[in-house]
Amino acid sequence: MRTQVAIIGAGPAGLLLGQLLYEAGIDNIIFEQRSPDYVLGRIRAGVLEQVTVDLLAQAKADKRMLAEGLPHDGIELLFGGKRHRIDLHELTGGKRVMVYGQTEVTRDLMEARKRAGLLTVYEAQNVTPLEFGSERPRVRYEKDGQQHEISCDFIAGCDGFHGVCRASIPADSIRNYEKVYPFGWLGILADVPPVSHELIYAHTERGFALCSQRSATRSRYYLQVPLTDKVENWSDEAFWDELRLRLDPEARANLVTGASLEKSIAPLRSFVSEPMRFGRMFLAGDAAHIVPPTGAKGLNLAASDVGYLSRAFAEFYQQRSSEGIDRYSEVSLRRVWKAERFSWWMTSLMHRFPDSGDFDRKVQEAELDYLVHSRAGATSLAENYVGLPLN
Amino acid sequence: MRTQVAIIGAGPAGLLLGQLLYEAGIDNIIFEQRSPDYVLGRIRAGVLEQVTVDLLAQAKADKRMLAEGLPHDGIELLFGGKRHRIDLHELTGGKRVMVYGQTEVTRDLMEARKRAGLLTVYEAQNVTPLEFGSERPRVRYEKDGQQHEISCDFIAGCDGFHGVCRASIPADSIRNYEKVYPFGWLGILADVPPVSHELIYAHTERGFALCSQRSATRSRYYLQVPLTDKVENWSDEAFWDELRLRLDPEARANLVTGASLEKSIAPLRSFVSEPMRFGRMFLAGDAAHIVPPTGAKGLNLAASDVGYLSRAFAEFYQQRSSEGIDRYSEVSLRRVWKAERFSWWMTSLMHRFPDSGDFDRKVQEAELDYLVHSRAGATSLAENYVGLPLN
Repeated sequence: MRTQVAIIGAGPAGLLLGQLLYEAGIDNIIFEQRSPDYVLGRIRAGVLEQVTVDLLAQAKADKRMLAEGLPHDGIELLFGGKRHRIDLHELTGGKRVMVYGQTEVTRDLMEARKRAGLLTVYEAQNVTPLEFGSERPRVRYEKDGQQHEISCDFIAGCDGFHGVCRASIPADSIRNYEKVYPFGWLGILADVPPVSHELIYAHTERGFALCSQRSATRSRYYLQVPLTDKVENWSDEAFWDELRLRLDPEARANLVTGASLEKSIAPLRSFVSEPMRFGRMFLAGDAAHIVPPTGAKGLNLAASDVGYLSRAFAEFYQQRSSEGIDRYSEVSLRRVWKAERFSWWMTSLMHRFPDSGDFDRKVQEAELDYLVHSRAGATSLAENYVGLPLN
Repeated sequence: MRTQVAIIGAGPAGLLLGQLLYEAGIDNIIFEQRSPDYVLGRIRAGVLEQVTVDLLAQAKADKRMLAEGLPHDGIELLFGGKRHRIDLHELTGGKRVMVYGQTEVTRDLMEARKRAGLLTVYEAQNVTPLEFGSERPRVRYEKDGQQHEISCDFIAGCDGFHGVCRASIPADSIRNYEKVYPFGWLGILADVPPVSHELIYAHTERGFALCSQRSATRSRYYLQVPLTDKVENWSDEAFWDELRLRLDPEARANLVTGASLEKSIAPLRSFVSEPMRFGRMFLAGDAAHIVPPTGAKGLNLAASDVGYLSRAFAEFYQQRSSEGIDRYSEVSLRRVWKAERFSWWMTSLMHRFPDSGDFDRKVQEAELDYLVHSRAGATSLAENYVGLPLN
């Protein structure tokens, strides 16, 4: 069997790439080691940049998002006991973000792929990219006890941070940049109405909190917690009690609590692997880079990566030009590093660092004070939050 | 003897305060432990914000500055081997900075003070602020072997970081915030024309460099050096050689070198002492706070402090209102912390930190790339550089 682009990983990056290639007339197969239900069970981000919304439109997978997603024109920063609104829409000349869960994006892309009749090999065992240093790469995998090989023109590594693609690259061809943060996020998902119609990012003496949402009836809340905390020691009640302590009086009064549908602690990490291309293998999304979730850039970076990559492949097949694929890594990384910078900055600004001194804390407060009182400062936050334009 | 305001310290903060009070009809005496020549021998900053320029006008000490100072409409950021101009004037709606050495500001204020016939006691020994917790503070000092006391309504502590005023405050009434940086600035002053008509802030793999100037024929250059370096091990030739390596080809070609008039290594420090008022003693300038020199905020903060303070004293004497003096510390500190934040940020952005990892360095580059390509980012730098407006 053969295809033009073999995509490894059926998360949102791989699925979106598949649909963008399909719409450009490029054949592709996706290989995924998990089942569809497993993929859909992963609870992740829920804030889409306009760039991502546009790419979902291009992939013809935006209908339900446009009907059910919640466009947000602003966010709120809570510090010193008061909330300050950042008017994203006004500050960026009309841009906004779309609140719509990653799970729903994945589901819509799966549906679009099904409608298009494209092949996704789920529960593929021991998926292995081969010979990607040559012009004839292959993908080997096992399924139902049988070994298979697919030949292709290109391999797209969309298999996440722990995937096989980046791990297959010789160590001396790759350079990794990493930063770990001395805290985690304890997240809870609950079928309760959100405390506010926009997201609240709270900087408090007790640590960071985020009031997020998936819909008008489903909320997602996070608390900064020490990395030594265990999720089993956090009852729902303890979570809501602590969240209340990190909110302003009005939000505290409006908070509706309920049983958690999901509760977990995630570490925060910044990670970039360079370059993003090795011969005929191209990394995209979490396979190449990770951001801490503050600022909601993870899914959006995956989308812009595959946006660049699908354009590069279209140039290759339609115009016989390899300029796009030759520049993919450089062009993507430039946007990746700006988002890494923003995510690191917003994480540094909003959290309480256990090892930071009094001076650093006063500087955090001064920066928050500056941001909400300077149009340039607020615009800088806003333009990064809604997403910098594609190059 | 008695006066309304006893000012301790005849640096630019004390001298400017003296003239602002004089223009408001408020009597003052300045006590300085050094001689006028010693004070004038201190080589310091040379970039004045519009706020400082305006205060010098109000003090009627701006004539020579307006004639000889160099208004600068922009600065240049050098990184990745290229220079990028930040157009301060255009980005801030018409603001600029004035390049004019602190030594010259001090000289002009001394002249103004002489013209006004105001008393400055130079070479005053063991200057001591007394009873400032009461309504009848005094200043004691020795001169020519005789002890003197002056009674006053208020004491202004303008005697710098190592001065007696802050040191006289009970430790439990004061809170200090401090950050030290793991490098110093090696500075050279030379009678050579500047390499460029605007300042160049250079971020390089070899460390930070700054091309500054005092006039069209006098240049001031700085190199980031390890704190362990000794100035006596840096020949003029070694300085110029290292500076060349941190410049772009055009600047390297234009650089004119010459014998140093002054050469020294200064550590970089962020420091804030809170509050800035204790009873009837008011701290201003370096007595209360220090910034690293990146961004040139030190002298400007001293000026805005004494701007607030002179206004507060004028309100007290002219309107019998103590609202200004009661709010002095809070109002000044809000501006101080924003300048501390900016100076820390610009220092962090531009220097090479010996203990920073590869990720941090890539983030520095991404931020520089963002700044020079985002109008909001560049405006945020520009509005802080030219100085945030007075509250």
